[in-house]
Amino acid sequence: QIADAVEAWFDAHADGRLTGRHVLVTAGPTHEPLDPVRYIANRSSGKQGYAIARALARMGAKVTLVTGPTGLTPPAGVDTVKVETARQMLAACEAALPADCAVCCAAVADYRPQIETEHKIKKERGGLSTIALSENPDILRTLSNHETSRPKLVIGFAAETDDVIGHADAKRKRKGCDWIVANDVSPGTGTMGGDNNTVTILSEEGEEAWDNMPKAAVAGRLAEKIADALLGKK
Amino acid sequence: QIADAVEAWFDAHADGRLTGRHVLVTAGPTHEPLDPVRYIANRSSGKQGYAIARALARMGAKVTLVTGPTGLTPPAGVDTVKVETARQMLAACEAALPADCAVCCAAVADYRPQIETEHKIKKERGGLSTIALSENPDILRTLSNHETSRPKLVIGFAAETDDVIGHADAKRKRKGCDWIVANDVSPGTGTMGGDNNTVTILSEEGEEAWDNMPKAAVAGRLAEKIADALLGKK
Repeated sequence: QIADAVEAWFDAHADGRLTGRHVLVTAGPTHEPLDPVRYIANRSSGKQGYAIARALARMGAKVTLVTGPTGLTPPAGVDTVKVETARQMLAACEAALPADCAVCCAAVADYRPQIETEHKIKKERGGLSTIALSENPDILRTLSNHETSRPKLVIGFAAETDDVIGHADAKRKRKGCDWIVANDVSPGTGTMGGDNNTVTILSEEGEEAWDNMPKAAVAGRLAEKIADALLGKK
Repeated sequence: QIADAVEAWFDAHADGRLTGRHVLVTAGPTHEPLDPVRYIANRSSGKQGYAIARALARMGAKVTLVTGPTGLTPPAGVDTVKVETARQMLAACEAALPADCAVCCAAVADYRPQIETEHKIKKERGGLSTIALSENPDILRTLSNHETSRPKLVIGFAAETDDVIGHADAKRKRKGCDWIVANDVSPGTGTMGGDNNTVTILSEEGEEAWDNMPKAAVAGRLAEKIADALLGKK
C-alpha cells in the first residue's frame, strides 16, 4: 500500500526529462543449472530493479529490463528480456547496447557449476560430494570497460553483509563503474525481499547516504539523479 | 482461467469425506544456503503441492502444508508452515505428526553446502572453486519408516527426466512409501512451473497412468484416491 502511494506520487510528478534516452537495467537473480532440476542462485526478489525500470520509463526513457527469474510482473512500457543464467544476461545486455546508462541491479551469480548434466543426477548412482565451479562473466565490469559502446553512466549495486561502504567503494574502483549503490542485506535488515531499502551512493565525488525508504522511492530518487547526470541538474 | 474453472468444479462437488482426518502435505523447493546471499535449490513452483493441500482441505481434512519458498498464496483453511531448508522441513513434518496420510510433494534438495558462512563469500578473497556438499535428511524415507508415528498412507513424488517409471518404481521400494506419483519434468514437457501435469501412480498393486490434466485436477483426483484408501471406496 505504501509502495503504491509512492508510485502514485511519482506518477503524478513525472516529467519527460529522459525522453529519447535509452537505459539498460538488470534485475533479479541468475539461476545456474547443475542438472534439469538443481541450480545455484543468488537471493534477489528483483523488486529494486523493477522499481528502477519503472521510474526511468515514467521519466520518458526507453528502458530495456534484462531480468533473471522473479515472481514479479514486468512494468508496463518497458522492454523486458527474461534470462536465466549470467551468461544469458550478459548476452542480452550486450545485444541491448548502445545505451546512455546501465543500471546493474541484478544479483548475478559469480560462479556456475562447471558441468551441467542433461539428466537428473541420481543420488543412488554415487551422487554428489562436491560441485566444481567456473567463474561467470562479470557483467558490470564488462559494461564499464566496453571498448565500443560503454554507456556514459554505469551504475553497479553492492549487496554486502559487513563493512558495506568499504567493500562497495573497492567494488566501484575494481569494476570501473561510475556509481555504486551500496546496501546492507544482512539477515535482520529486512532488505532482502522486503519493500524498503537503505542505500548509500558512492562515486568519485564521495558518498551520499539516503535514509531508509520504500524501494519505489529509492528508484524515483535514483532516476532523478541519473537524469541530472545525463542532462545536467534541473 | 482453466485452473480456476477446475477448482470451481471441485468446490461445487466437494463432500466432507475426509473430515476428522489429518493430512500432511509438503510442497515447493528447499533452499540450502552457502552464505547470506547464495544458495543451492531444486526447481519447484509449489503449484502441485498447494493444489493437493487445497483439494484435501475441500474434502474436510485438517491439512498441514509444510512449504519451502514459493511465490504462491497459501490456500485458505490450511495450516501452513513456511520453511527454507530440508532440515527445517523435516523438523516441521515431524512436529506435525501424527497424521493419517503424508503427501511428500516438495522437491527437497538432496544435498546442502557442508559449510554455511555467516558473511558473504568474497570472490576477490580467493572465492570459490568447489562447493563441498553434505547429504540432507531424507524426509520421505523418514516418514515412511517412522517408528512411532508412521502415517497409514505415505505418498512420494518422483520428478524424473529419463526412464520415469523405472526410476519412480525403484524410488518407491527404496523409500518404503506406499505410492509414488511419477512425472516427467524434462525440459519441453512444460510440467515444471506450468499449470498441467501428466502423472502415473505407482503402488504395490501396479501402475495407473493418468492423462495430461490441470494440476488442480490431478490434485482433486489424488485427494479422492486418498479418501478411498483411508476410508474404502465410496
